[in-house]
Amino acid sequence: MAILRGRHFLQIPGPTNVPERVLRAMTKPTIDHRGPEFVRLTRELLESLQEVCQTTGKVVIYPSSGTGAWEAAIVNTLSPGDKVLMFETGHFAVMWRNLAVRLGIQADFIPGNWREGVDPLLVEEKLTADQKQDIKAIMVVHNETSTGVLSRIAEIRQAINRVGHNALLMVDTISSLALTDYRHDAWGVDVTVGSSQKGLMLPPGIGFNVLSEKALMASKSARLPKAYWDWEAVIKANQTGFFPYTPPTNLFFGLKEALQMILEEGLENIFRRHNRFAEATRRAVRAWGLEVNCLSPAEYSNSVTAVRLPEGYDADTLRKLILEKFNLSLGNGLGKLQGKVFRIGHMGDFNELMLAGTLSGIEMGMALAGVPHKKGGVQAALDYLAGNE
Amino acid sequence: MAILRGRHFLQIPGPTNVPERVLRAMTKPTIDHRGPEFVRLTRELLESLQEVCQTTGKVVIYPSSGTGAWEAAIVNTLSPGDKVLMFETGHFAVMWRNLAVRLGIQADFIPGNWREGVDPLLVEEKLTADQKQDIKAIMVVHNETSTGVLSRIAEIRQAINRVGHNALLMVDTISSLALTDYRHDAWGVDVTVGSSQKGLMLPPGIGFNVLSEKALMASKSARLPKAYWDWEAVIKANQTGFFPYTPPTNLFFGLKEALQMILEEGLENIFRRHNRFAEATRRAVRAWGLEVNCLSPAEYSNSVTAVRLPEGYDADTLRKLILEKFNLSLGNGLGKLQGKVFRIGHMGDFNELMLAGTLSGIEMGMALAGVPHKKGGVQAALDYLAGNE
Amino acid sequence: MAILRGRHFLQIPGPTNVPERVLRAMTKPTIDHRGPEFVRLTRELLESLQEVCQTTGKVVIYPSSGTGAWEAAIVNTLSPGDKVLMFETGHFAVMWRNLAVRLGIQADFIPGNWREGVDPLLVEEKLTADQKQDIKAIMVVHNETSTGVLSRIAEIRQAINRVGHNALLMVDTISSLALTDYRHDAWGVDVTVGSSQKGLMLPPGIGFNVLSEKALMASKSARLPKAYWDWEAVIKANQTGFFPYTPPTNLFFGLKEALQMILEEGLENIFRRHNRFAEATRRAVRAWGLEVNCLSPAEYSNSVTAVRLPEGYDADTLRKLILEKFNLSLGNGLGKLQGKVFRIGHMGDFNELMLAGTLSGIEMGMALAGVPHKKGGVQAALDYLAGNE
Amino acid sequence: MAILRGRHFLQIPGPTNVPERVLRAMTKPTIDHRGPEFVRLTRELLESLQEVCQTTGKVVIYPSSGTGAWEAAIVNTLSPGDKVLMFETGHFAVMWRNLAVRLGIQADFIPGNWREGVDPLLVEEKLTADQKQDIKAIMVVHNETSTGVLSRIAEIRQAINRVGHNALLMVDTISSLALTDYRHDAWGVDVTVGSSQKGLMLPPGIGFNVLSEKALMASKSARLPKAYWDWEAVIKANQTGFFPYTPPTNLFFGLKEALQMILEEGLENIFRRHNRFAEATRRAVRAWGLEVNCLSPAEYSNSVTAVRLPEGYDADTLRKLILEKFNLSLGNGLGKLQGKVFRIGHMGDFNELMLAGTLSGIEMGMALAGVPHKKGGVQAALDYLAGNE
Repeated sequence: MAILRGRHFLQIPGPTNVPERVLRAMTKPTIDHRGPEFVRLTRELLESLQEVCQTTGKVVIYPSSGTGAWEAAIVNTLSPGDKVLMFETGHFAVMWRNLAVRLGIQADFIPGNWREGVDPLLVEEKLTADQKQDIKAIMVVHNETSTGVLSRIAEIRQAINRVGHNALLMVDTISSLALTDYRHDAWGVDVTVGSSQKGLMLPPGIGFNVLSEKALMASKSARLPKAYWDWEAVIKANQTGFFPYTPPTNLFFGLKEALQMILEEGLENIFRRHNRFAEATRRAVRAWGLEVNCLSPAEYSNSVTAVRLPEGYDADTLRKLILEKFNLSLGNGLGKLQGKVFRIGHMGDFNELMLAGTLSGIEMGMALAGVPHKKGGVQAALDYLAGNE
Repeated sequence: MAILRGRHFLQIPGPTNVPERVLRAMTKPTIDHRGPEFVRLTRELLESLQEVCQTTGKVVIYPSSGTGAWEAAIVNTLSPGDKVLMFETGHFAVMWRNLAVRLGIQADFIPGNWREGVDPLLVEEKLTADQKQDIKAIMVVHNETSTGVLSRIAEIRQAINRVGHNALLMVDTISSLALTDYRHDAWGVDVTVGSSQKGLMLPPGIGFNVLSEKALMASKSARLPKAYWDWEAVIKANQTGFFPYTPPTNLFFGLKEALQMILEEGLENIFRRHNRFAEATRRAVRAWGLEVNCLSPAEYSNSVTAVRLPEGYDADTLRKLILEKFNLSLGNGLGKLQGKVFRIGHMGDFNELMLAGTLSGIEMGMALAGVPHKKGGVQAALDYLAGNE
Repeated sequence: MAILRGRHFLQIPGPTNVPERVLRAMTKPTIDHRGPEFVRLTRELLESLQEVCQTTGKVVIYPSSGTGAWEAAIVNTLSPGDKVLMFETGHFAVMWRNLAVRLGIQADFIPGNWREGVDPLLVEEKLTADQKQDIKAIMVVHNETSTGVLSRIAEIRQAINRVGHNALLMVDTISSLALTDYRHDAWGVDVTVGSSQKGLMLPPGIGFNVLSEKALMASKSARLPKAYWDWEAVIKANQTGFFPYTPPTNLFFGLKEALQMILEEGLENIFRRHNRFAEATRRAVRAWGLEVNCLSPAEYSNSVTAVRLPEGYDADTLRKLILEKFNLSLGNGLGKLQGKVFRIGHMGDFNELMLAGTLSGIEMGMALAGVPHKKGGVQAALDYLAGNE
Repeated sequence: MAILRGRHFLQIPGPTNVPERVLRAMTKPTIDHRGPEFVRLTRELLESLQEVCQTTGKVVIYPSSGTGAWEAAIVNTLSPGDKVLMFETGHFAVMWRNLAVRLGIQADFIPGNWREGVDPLLVEEKLTADQKQDIKAIMVVHNETSTGVLSRIAEIRQAINRVGHNALLMVDTISSLALTDYRHDAWGVDVTVGSSQKGLMLPPGIGFNVLSEKALMASKSARLPKAYWDWEAVIKANQTGFFPYTPPTNLFFGLKEALQMILEEGLENIFRRHNRFAEATRRAVRAWGLEVNCLSPAEYSNSVTAVRLPEGYDADTLRKLILEKFNLSLGNGLGKLQGKVFRIGHMGDFNELMLAGTLSGIEMGMALAGVPHKKGGVQAALDYLAGNE
């Protein structure tokens, strides 16, 4: 394999390209996590994360991946044998369900075709049928990273409210936060699950929960064993600016910088920017004569586009060629989409020309790999971007 | 407070000073955690960690603090209500006990004076009394970071063997690994608990377990709920070079560099270097007329020295003055030692002159704070170091 | 102006994008420039620079810009009032001429149209006419950064040889070295002038000369005053690994890394890579219906393409829009080309997708700025690149 | 040689330890040196440098070492054969004289013993004798880095004024600026010569001049050839925020950060801090029974202390041992002091504990090397520092 030069295009749907500002911040010398400088850092991080999550609720940060934050949401709120409602929107929904089941939760897992989000009417129907209110939580992946499909959280909340059901609403925002409008408070979410390596533009290593008052209340009586993930211990330690475990200091330095960048740009601007990139990407895909995996425009993802390959062509072979020839990493198909789709991450510290380069790598790669397609995808994207700047 | 210039002396007993080489490695651009370069990285990390732990056993890495690695050791091997034997060697032993209890384990917690390590004879006695072999695990902190006292793991293993007891031996090496001789295989340890921010010279954010065959076997029947911490899922994914969660890529870049530095220097050289620093530190303490918290020379710590202040003097007041005047962070007294001791971390990427600077800051700080002491601690350290280079 | 996110595309014709590896190397702690580690560094740099310049001649490095290396070439070889032959290939040729004149040299400056390189036949003619061999040096810019035109050094040398003229041949390779084939020894160059910020992929701050034996001999009798630039002092100090001035240590760290990257990839591969990018760029320009400034294919530049705008359109207005909308810096027209051309740097740590992004920014920018052009430039480049990988 | 761990102590008298903040700033991506962001950078640098030099005069920056800035001072103000008055205060005075002579200047070089600064009365005497005002400039090294001796610039200016002589006063502040009080305007200096790698806490690579109106006027008629160093070209380009050569962008990023740090701390605080370190160092030297090279307290250097070794002991042997055993670089004796002194740099990003470490390394090194001395130097320094915080 030839030596590749120039910047690697890391266009997997997370981890995303980490801005130089953030990488630089992470190289500051580690400080005493029990000293006065750390107290200021903790407070700033918690406040900024609230702003990004559009909440006044408590934020609980973990040294963990997003998977850890899933586990934290469950063990803090539920008891062994509790019943939850989940939806098979894609690979990450399946993984969250599996995790819940392993922890002793009964998940009513509504099957899905991996091309659509959660149907709010189905939520309403399921809750209406649950007259004894056995369902303790509804757990939804906001943006399914494996399929490029968004679920409509606000409408799901409305459905719950129409029924008057008491279940907690828990939402995985790992690949939507700071990329797509998301409102913890206004949408009545009880537990938000997030992590560092997508919209927050950080390397992986930080997971977090945001809690409603109702979730906090539920945690008092939840009986799954918990220690590392225990919200209460973190919240208590945070009051003085500290943590009950050794916090990941240098990732925190990076998080501070990333949150500053997000708030400088403004959430509205960030959402609009990603919306443009996503639309430009879909126009390229259609110009190539290929199919966007997501079926409904109302559920298009701002963060990632999964592209379906024609029958008989292997997406992983294409991805390998593109990586070796053009120094571009694309996301692979996960679970039942393995080999059938490739995924384009278009999120984070990203701009028009990075997108144009990405789409160019795909178009050239398809030509070299003999994947049937029409030329002109890049052109279609450029036409859109130049007309909508 | 005046602006402080020059390098901060981060002489808390962890996180330790991160070498520039490691910080630089952490700023490499994040890569695809499902790509071929990552596979090579994973394999190199696992092999090097085995070498550092002196083991051929499986290593399981987590995005977590050391606390997470404690929890992992427990949930993978034990079942609700299981009985374990633990020893109150200090604050971290107490915390590990509390964590076990929260997870539903019954801990027989042998009281201690926070100045001595685990007595192997007491282990023998306790196990001999446990004729039904109800004790499922003996959990020991190798180096008590809060007290500067080492427990003698090899002798504890011999005690267990003399009784012929079947309990697992689990050892917290968070502040001993790559600092003090530690042999997972030769000493018959079943679960080693480690983390990144002490001898491994990394920022916090990585925890890990090392497993014996017996521990792996125990994990098959252990019934505490586990998902994020599940060894099996990690080991399985590692076989192809991947992880079941999003791994902390940039911390891994740093870990690779740090492990290279450790293996370049050689474990024996590292142990000898730390032994010198620890002895020099104790000589300074004695020359000041102060007391080393650790009572027995056989249990002196290579990593940290806790220094007892005369009655009536507050260690935290002294630490604050030293931080503000001399840009030196020392460790505070934890738990029942709060205010009574300060702790000098002398580990990791550390050398004679950094130690001399550290001791100088303490000696000047005591003079300024009016803590009764004799001059000459730094001199005593220098005399020893120059005579033992 | 909106906040721009994602990577900046620095596609000016130098300084070029500095690879992360090089930036990281530059952050190593400064070392003693009179210590043993520095000696090894000096030797490695001098040897690697020789390899890159295809020479066994002496290399003399300065803390300076490329302009300083021009001055060094002159003051070391010439005397007040000496006559030299120079060619108006563009802005940098003019600047070098001006510098020579300021230093007291008489430059016979052959006018040019800024679209062609030096004509070897004209060199031959001029030298033939110089029967008394009054011309002491022929000074040529290998790659005119301001016009994107290459001069054919090997043919110029042949012309000199045909005449049997004794003049020194001095060549500015600032924007050709490690980008286009350049052979100090084989082509009989007497003084090579180079700098750090183009093909060497470093930030600006280092200039250098490479010397033939004949140049060294000339320096013994040259009578322009010289001190800082004096070759002899540097060569003498270099023999023990040191410098007669304080060398730019951290830039040297970066230079070492950059030279390693160049030699890893191999000069032939680097030349081929840049040749592809340059051809793809020209195809885009032609597809847009615009004109490449360089008139002759034999003189196309591997490093930079100057693009002529239609009459009545201002290149700087276009560049400003592209910078503000698309985070892309293009080179401005210099001297008599101001406002008439923009210049695309396609050199250094650069790849296909960075080029595609660059061309996309230009194509979209022209659409937004109302510059008359045809669509399809990016497509033409992609077609070429995919067909010639 | 064993592998050395921990931070290197770079206590040569420059380049100094570069703060992490500055190193990080230098890794920002290189920007267009003809773009709007660069304009802002240029203006900020020039203004801050004025503040540090206590001047409203023009500042002219070069990509060069300090040697280059010496040359610039001469070629901009003098004509071939001009006579200047210089003083043999040490190695750097000798080098500056040699440089002037090479450029065609006649230097009246007053011999010195390398232990004293310039005697203002001698200046007065020399100028009084120069009734025809043939002397065009008086050139003084403010802080002789090779000897640790300061010359009293304000008194020299008063001496010049008493005579009413018209000569320019040029001062090399390379190792005094931002370390010792220095007032370009108030002291009537005509050309200040400075560089980046000492008090400015930057790696080497930047030199600069500060000009009085009188110096600027002199430059109009000065007839030494000049091009690269020409003040006029730089001043003119700076008016629009640019440079006539490619400026060293990433060093400029570092310079901006370093100047911010200096102005944050405040010049007065910086001078006081260095004064304390210098006094503590001298007390250590005297406690060892060794001799400080500088003879007069009025001429003690804030930046560097040269320490004389007893007859028959080689300072370079001692320095080598200290480097290999204790990871500490000390400055060597230069010129006629070679082997006779070692030099302790105590300047820049430096604090009490770094000094204590440095002195400890020396004290231990002397013990190991068998250099006759008394113990207690470190103790003497600590006593002073603790009593004068």
